[in-house]
Amino acid sequence: MKDSVYWADQTWPEAKAMVEKGAPVFLPLGSTEQHGHHMAVGVDIILPTAICERVARQVGGLVLPTIPYGNRSQPRSGGGPAFPGTINLSAQTFSLVVRDVIVELFRQGVRRVVVVNGHYENIWPSIEGIELALDAIGRSNLEDLNILRMDHWEFARPETIARIFPDGYPGIELEHASVIETSMMLAVRPDLVDLDRSLHDGPAQFRPYDRFPRPPIEVPPSGVLSMTEGSTAEKGEWLFADAVEKMVEIVREEFEIGN
Amino acid sequence: MKDSVYWADQTWPEAKAMVEKGAPVFLPLGSTEQHGHHMAVGVDIILPTAICERVARQVGGLVLPTIPYGNRSQPRSGGGPAFPGTINLSAQTFSLVVRDVIVELFRQGVRRVVVVNGHYENIWPSIEGIELALDAIGRSNLEDLNILRMDHWEFARPETIARIFPDGYPGIELEHASVIETSMMLAVRPDLVDLDRSLHDGPAQFRPYDRFPRPPIEVPPSGVLSMTEGSTAEKGEWLFADAVEKMVEIVREEFEIGN
Amino acid sequence: MKDSVYWADQTWPEAKAMVEKGAPVFLPLGSTEQHGHHMAVGVDIILPTAICERVARQVGGLVLPTIPYGNRSQPRSGGGPAFPGTINLSAQTFSLVVRDVIVELFRQGVRRVVVVNGHYENIWPSIEGIELALDAIGRSNLEDLNILRMDHWEFARPETIARIFPDGYPGIELEHASVIETSMMLAVRPDLVDLDRSLHDGPAQFRPYDRFPRPPIEVPPSGVLSMTEGSTAEKGEWLFADAVEKMVEIVREEFEIGN
Amino acid sequence: MKDSVYWADQTWPEAKAMVEKGAPVFLPLGSTEQHGHHMAVGVDIILPTAICERVARQVGGLVLPTIPYGNRSQPRSGGGPAFPGTINLSAQTFSLVVRDVIVELFRQGVRRVVVVNGHYENIWPSIEGIELALDAIGRSNLEDLNILRMDHWEFARPETIARIFPDGYPGIELEHASVIETSMMLAVRPDLVDLDRSLHDGPAQFRPYDRFPRPPIEVPPSGVLSMTEGSTAEKGEWLFADAVEKMVEIVREEFEIGN
Amino acid sequence: MKDSVYWADQTWPEAKAMVEKGAPVFLPLGSTEQHGHHMAVGVDIILPTAICERVARQVGGLVLPTIPYGNRSQPRSGGGPAFPGTINLSAQTFSLVVRDVIVELFRQGVRRVVVVNGHYENIWPSIEGIELALDAIGRSNLEDLNILRMDHWEFARPETIARIFPDGYPGIELEHASVIETSMMLAVRPDLVDLDRSLHDGPAQFRPYDRFPRPPIEVPPSGVLSMTEGSTAEKGEWLFADAVEKMVEIVREEFEIGN
Amino acid sequence: MKDSVYWADQTWPEAKAMVEKGAPVFLPLGSTEQHGHHMAVGVDIILPTAICERVARQVGGLVLPTIPYGNRSQPRSGGGPAFPGTINLSAQTFSLVVRDVIVELFRQGVRRVVVVNGHYENIWPSIEGIELALDAIGRSNLEDLNILRMDHWEFARPETIARIFPDGYPGIELEHASVIETSMMLAVRPDLVDLDRSLHDGPAQFRPYDRFPRPPIEVPPSGVLSMTEGSTAEKGEWLFADAVEKMVEIVREEFEIGN
Repeated sequence: MKDSVYWADQTWPEAKAMVEKGAPVFLPLGSTEQHGHHMAVGVDIILPTAICERVARQVGGLVLPTIPYGNRSQPRSGGGPAFPGTINLSAQTFSLVVRDVIVELFRQGVRRVVVVNGHYENIWPSIEGIELALDAIGRSNLEDLNILRMDHWEFARPETIARIFPDGYPGIELEHASVIETSMMLAVRPDLVDLDRSLHDGPAQFRPYDRFPRPPIEVPPSGVLSMTEGSTAEKGEWLFADAVEKMVEIVREEFEIGN
Repeated sequence: MKDSVYWADQTWPEAKAMVEKGAPVFLPLGSTEQHGHHMAVGVDIILPTAICERVARQVGGLVLPTIPYGNRSQPRSGGGPAFPGTINLSAQTFSLVVRDVIVELFRQGVRRVVVVNGHYENIWPSIEGIELALDAIGRSNLEDLNILRMDHWEFARPETIARIFPDGYPGIELEHASVIETSMMLAVRPDLVDLDRSLHDGPAQFRPYDRFPRPPIEVPPSGVLSMTEGSTAEKGEWLFADAVEKMVEIVREEFEIGN
Repeated sequence: MKDSVYWADQTWPEAKAMVEKGAPVFLPLGSTEQHGHHMAVGVDIILPTAICERVARQVGGLVLPTIPYGNRSQPRSGGGPAFPGTINLSAQTFSLVVRDVIVELFRQGVRRVVVVNGHYENIWPSIEGIELALDAIGRSNLEDLNILRMDHWEFARPETIARIFPDGYPGIELEHASVIETSMMLAVRPDLVDLDRSLHDGPAQFRPYDRFPRPPIEVPPSGVLSMTEGSTAEKGEWLFADAVEKMVEIVREEFEIGN
Repeated sequence: MKDSVYWADQTWPEAKAMVEKGAPVFLPLGSTEQHGHHMAVGVDIILPTAICERVARQVGGLVLPTIPYGNRSQPRSGGGPAFPGTINLSAQTFSLVVRDVIVELFRQGVRRVVVVNGHYENIWPSIEGIELALDAIGRSNLEDLNILRMDHWEFARPETIARIFPDGYPGIELEHASVIETSMMLAVRPDLVDLDRSLHDGPAQFRPYDRFPRPPIEVPPSGVLSMTEGSTAEKGEWLFADAVEKMVEIVREEFEIGN
Repeated sequence: MKDSVYWADQTWPEAKAMVEKGAPVFLPLGSTEQHGHHMAVGVDIILPTAICERVARQVGGLVLPTIPYGNRSQPRSGGGPAFPGTINLSAQTFSLVVRDVIVELFRQGVRRVVVVNGHYENIWPSIEGIELALDAIGRSNLEDLNILRMDHWEFARPETIARIFPDGYPGIELEHASVIETSMMLAVRPDLVDLDRSLHDGPAQFRPYDRFPRPPIEVPPSGVLSMTEGSTAEKGEWLFADAVEKMVEIVREEFEIGN
Repeated sequence: MKDSVYWADQTWPEAKAMVEKGAPVFLPLGSTEQHGHHMAVGVDIILPTAICERVARQVGGLVLPTIPYGNRSQPRSGGGPAFPGTINLSAQTFSLVVRDVIVELFRQGVRRVVVVNGHYENIWPSIEGIELALDAIGRSNLEDLNILRMDHWEFARPETIARIFPDGYPGIELEHASVIETSMMLAVRPDLVDLDRSLHDGPAQFRPYDRFPRPPIEVPPSGVLSMTEGSTAEKGEWLFADAVEKMVEIVREEFEIGN
């Protein structure tokens, strides 16, 4: 077997051999979405892919091509559609992609799937996509299919959060393009981060409701919902370590895979 | 502006600036599909992306994230769904992704779009996706929108084909995972090609009709529809050069972009 | 005008007159979902409807018929599909209902719409439904359309939460069928609450990820995610008062309606 | 068991117990549609719900939340979309709601379903919704599923019609907002009827074909297709009695339920 | 201009010339459905096409290719899906075909469309298809579009019905494959009628409700819902004459076309 | 059994008997599309229907009603949507019609289906329609279902092509409305061909890519992509003979039907 854990890098007999061994298959869900003046719009593609690669190496899995377009960015969680650079799918389109991929995996014998999400707005349509896949496969034909769905930011340990935010955590909802994502990008793709350009117009003071069709004026013009000060590659590595360690543990336990 | 021509590597203000300058935007269409014992299943992702990158550099464009899953592989053109490793989208799902991306591009001001396809079975649903986008935008609101749709294998010059196939060209339909694709992969990602493993069970002798649900027995077990002998990186570069040169010329002419 | 603020209770000339006056129109989004052994499955229908009625009285609005079936209940927020009594719509179906209703409102001249959600899992497909409505109306035809989307639990004041949970708030995610909803039901429909039957198997200790197709074993068998002790009609009234007061304020400000 | 026959008023263990006993489950289909100057737009919600309640009491059934929005009102049967107050769903949306509800009922063990329609234009999309549900469940998995679909106006006995219309029956197609519906509303919700406001511009003289997009000028401006004179609560009770008696008989016979 | 009034028989310049002259365009809606032991399953294709041809000749119109598959046959109106030979489309599919054809007609300048239906179950999805077309075109872009939708059996004059049924008319709902359709077929395609084979197991005594998934036992095994005795070509011609005369009159009046 | 091989000409007991005998069922796929100044827009309806009739006679099969509207005509293969007279379906609509028809055939026991296509742009959505049918039937329920999908132009023997084009074959892609189709029409419907009107503005010199939304200026104004000179009924008969002979052979072999 070659060194790569990416599905797309395997020949079909290699993919076949992995599937027959019961290798867990990871599907990263990304987006193309503004992440402030200081980071590339591909952040949500890069981070879940990088996490999946690390986890897959430890558990003997394969990482599918990342879905690079996500469900509609919303003003309160990602800045919303008013930012150029953001390219949204509708919820139905996104769900259908997830459905089709999972149905195909099932068809060729994959029974251990881990959907790893990197974009807040993908949470619900990824759930829907999985449900639609179960419908399409047939609820009575699911055999030993086992699908896990994870949002990578859920696995930061409280101790890590406390270390990163000694003055208090603004909360995950405002973390878009902020310290957590910036630090993680500094850890894996520092070439796509330019802290000198980060603006200081946050944190956003969102009203607790949505307005359509006009975007709320509370969205910080920079697109950074909270703040970027204090972002470092080291903190990014802490966060990666948390996510990878926890995900490896979950995958091993849920799929009953030994070390 | 940073050196990358990839949309996902830009910050949103960088993407915005490029759009405002009228930069052509390239959307590569890929697939995850068997390509024989000797090549990775990601060939159709890699090739159109690599071509787009070279063209975009020359014309001052940006390359969107490649759609990594393609429309249903068919036995006569790509081996079909019976090969593990191949992951298909349905035509409707694929078309909706193309639709949504183009609608979003239009919404943020992009008026010059080049859809570059790398997977035979994507031809028709990419046309449908573009048509659905025009419907969604509104046929009377299209302004100066100009979309080009290209299949990268169309641009090999007859002289190049003659040089590569001195004994006669088997035809593009049998070129799946064969000399053309293998040579092009050797040019850009030789690490994902292992000619020692290529099998010699072709060329396929397909009957001139389709059968469902059973795949035709004429599909070569290797997944290579024609042959791989004689594939070289040099020939791959000839093909890249043809495609890039021709596409640059087309983009400049169609979009009236100077050198 | 008759005393009722319900759209369904108006004759069409009465509805017409209200629309012409610019009356805000409220669309409550409910669900039919298990709410423990001690409450009816209609809780998510009753609460947003009751709130809308109170708000509409104060701002001169009308309350549309509540959509009584919600998007798929999930184990971590509502117990999930394994509980009998829960009747889910798929996300696409739910979004299409929201879309159609809003398109119809627009068609007959309504320009001030307040979507008031009472079921956690409706958040995302209600956003999608609104976006689909804007697509269907045509993004360039929206005139002065103004849609607000609210989740009623967002408006409890911190002081109220502190009064209700002197020992600390478990968080909204675990509040399903717990003290907040139980108290609010005691305030408006005490006949549908039987505290004697409430079970004490929570609070749920959910893992931070989803599993399909099998529901997680961490869902408390009762369906109560947190606890019900201490629920009172008085506390329910506090919560109603908070929601109504805040929503009246928002509606008046956003729609520029005087007192 | 509490006194209510409404599904939404049950706790989930109560709903579960009823399902396990084989209780018939009634799904009323309504609409929000103009019903003249003298009646509320909610007539089609109220009447089938009231009938279902009475039938369910007699046969030990449960009544699901009424779908409150119906398929597109047509000029010749309900006045059409030109009347403010009418809020239509598209046929596909309406059918999907019916589909989803029936699939969910099946999933939790319900095998005796009675769909009771109160809006003429719902006939066909409710049939479609049931067929789509059978497709989704799987035609070979239907077990002992038994679905009845009824339009409540079909059960008036000829003798009753003769008593109500001694001068001849104008026919059900013109009965929209006319004597039958008005009398039935007087029987159950007299507060939503104001006979003093009923106008006398009918009966409609419709041409025997449809015109789009312009509504036909033959639609009486009042929205009453026939006439309202002679409507009384007593006649309404006759009609309720007919419908309930006949439906109880059908349900008992079809589902083999004893008295 | 050649003698044919069929759109499919025109060259494109001929079709173009007719459209530019404002010729009404007729779209016949058919079905492939059992029509008893004595008639071909194509009755619903043949009759509306034949009527359209006659009307088009008189008003200078063109007849589009007939949609040959109809919406799901129902037991009470067409025998239902249990009869071999019947091939149904789902309502959504049928509506989308109607939508697409009308959108295309509009796109090329047709503003006078007559949809002529020959299959009872097509009524509602043809209405839906027209509405979806209006949505797709854009409600504010309809210009002078004028669509008429007719069911051909609506135009028999009472005098004709009385002549054909001297002993009383069983009603249109039971006329499936009965005297009216049989007589009309005898008038235009006697080769597809064999009265010797007609069975006498009707008239159907349907219960006034639908049952799913099992077809009702009341459907006459022959598929003839009423009776066939007394069918003659002459009566068929009377019915054709009524329909054609009335439709010519309507088309002339609605489209303001002189004689 | 009557002489006709058309499904629509059979009574339902006749259709039933044929299905029970295992008769192959042919589904012709047509289109309504410009075919130059000299031929009717119905060419793609007529040709596959005529071929199917001849084949069905020889193998004891039945020919279903031809789907008369095809997938979107494209400039490079059929002239595209700019020609009046062309009426396109969207890919999804076309696929759904194919899906529904095949599902219905399966439901009533047909297991040998031959889809015979006469319109280039139908290739891909007919494949999709077949795949969607297999999904709808259930991939594990397909029993001995056997579907063949053919494009009628694939069966011309090289010898025939050489006889028709002694100076070299322009290739099937440019054969739209050209010698092959014209000759075949002269063989079966000479009344719909007028060679005197054929224009000489081809052959088209298409660029090897698509442009949207504007049609390419390279489309010959006549709509004839290549040339019409030399078309004769005799050549048409040669082509019919090739197609019929080959298709009979395939059907017999694939379905194991004796002579």
